[in-house]
Amino acid sequence: MDNTALYKLSYGVFMLSTTADGKSNGCITNTAIQVASNPTRIAIACINANYTCDLIKKSGVFTLSLLDETTTFDLIKHFGMQSGRDVDKIAGQPLKQDAKGLYYLTEHTTAYISATVVDSMDLGSHTLFIATVDDAKLVSGKAPLTYADYQSKVKPKPEAPKQDRKIKGWRCKICGYIYEGSELPADFKCPLCGHPADDFEPIYE
Amino acid sequence: MDNTALYKLSYGVFMLSTTADGKSNGCITNTAIQVASNPTRIAIACINANYTCDLIKKSGVFTLSLLDETTTFDLIKHFGMQSGRDVDKIAGQPLKQDAKGLYYLTEHTTAYISATVVDSMDLGSHTLFIATVDDAKLVSGKAPLTYADYQSKVKPKPEAPKQDRKIKGWRCKICGYIYEGSELPADFKCPLCGHPADDFEPIYE
Repeated sequence: MDNTALYKLSYGVFMLSTTADGKSNGCITNTAIQVASNPTRIAIACINANYTCDLIKKSGVFTLSLLDETTTFDLIKHFGMQSGRDVDKIAGQPLKQDAKGLYYLTEHTTAYISATVVDSMDLGSHTLFIATVDDAKLVSGKAPLTYADYQSKVKPKPEAPKQDRKIKGWRCKICGYIYEGSELPADFKCPLCGHPADDFEPIYE
Repeated sequence: MDNTALYKLSYGVFMLSTTADGKSNGCITNTAIQVASNPTRIAIACINANYTCDLIKKSGVFTLSLLDETTTFDLIKHFGMQSGRDVDKIAGQPLKQDAKGLYYLTEHTTAYISATVVDSMDLGSHTLFIATVDDAKLVSGKAPLTYADYQSKVKPKPEAPKQDRKIKGWRCKICGYIYEGSELPADFKCPLCGHPADDFEPIYE
């Protein structure tokens, strides 16, 4: 099996948000598709290790902010590379609340979808949620950011490791998984979230 | 709800194929995402009215040919706009068989995935299949065709209806659904497959 073949699947980039037990949070995901009409339903896959995934299991509702071509790496970093268990990702961000009180982004966002979970499936690394779309509205209406364009245009090129410091491990910037060892194989994929070696950053001694 | 907001979700374009009861068939779909790692799993949504969907329910296996940027409208028309119940879509096409004997495309295809269904969910208009990836290989390795590029670059612009002939209805070119009436509302969506008004062609008296 050639893992690079799977990279040829096309995705968008989304900020997924929910509120449960008085706590609001959001994360970055690239896996959302419409799966049925009448009623309109979407499927999203969410990493089980993510706090947002825990919250959706409790709330049964979520919004999906469909990021547009103006998206900055700062926005991805804010929602995608830190955990809502440690920081408040909501405060100070360009967000509005929908009819259910859930947050969605008002900047760098072409449209948003508000949905209610009707079924879910635990797939080990991820949970797949099937949800009925309650509301959907255009925000900027601009071209959506594709995951391919995120990789080639938005994401900074990985920094070369500093030669004068010893590397003791590698951290997945997507989900926080730690690989122990100084050399990360080039074809390594995160066992937790499936992201490739260039989503890892070195941990120095 | 603004349906155009849902058009901002990003998709690829795929030829989905299987073999059951000695019959091989393929159709065009745009909904496939990786949903888990270890084992690698994908989810695809398939229109229940499609013959390929029936066959996958029997066989429990399928291939997904990930179409590339060189894809022609003829290829989409061949696999996407006629039914395998009426014609043999396999004969004479640039196809190879994988280790399970299933067909995948060798032209206009960046990569293919071969998978086994582990779960499914009937969502009314569509069935969502969750499948473990058994094999995946690069074919052309070129940039994948996105659904947005299919709409703007590959698909011909809809023909203006002939003024001298009376229209009695409209046929969805994707799934064959018939709308009775001379005027199709601009915001109409196919109740069967969810495709918009410009995927319908006039039926003349």
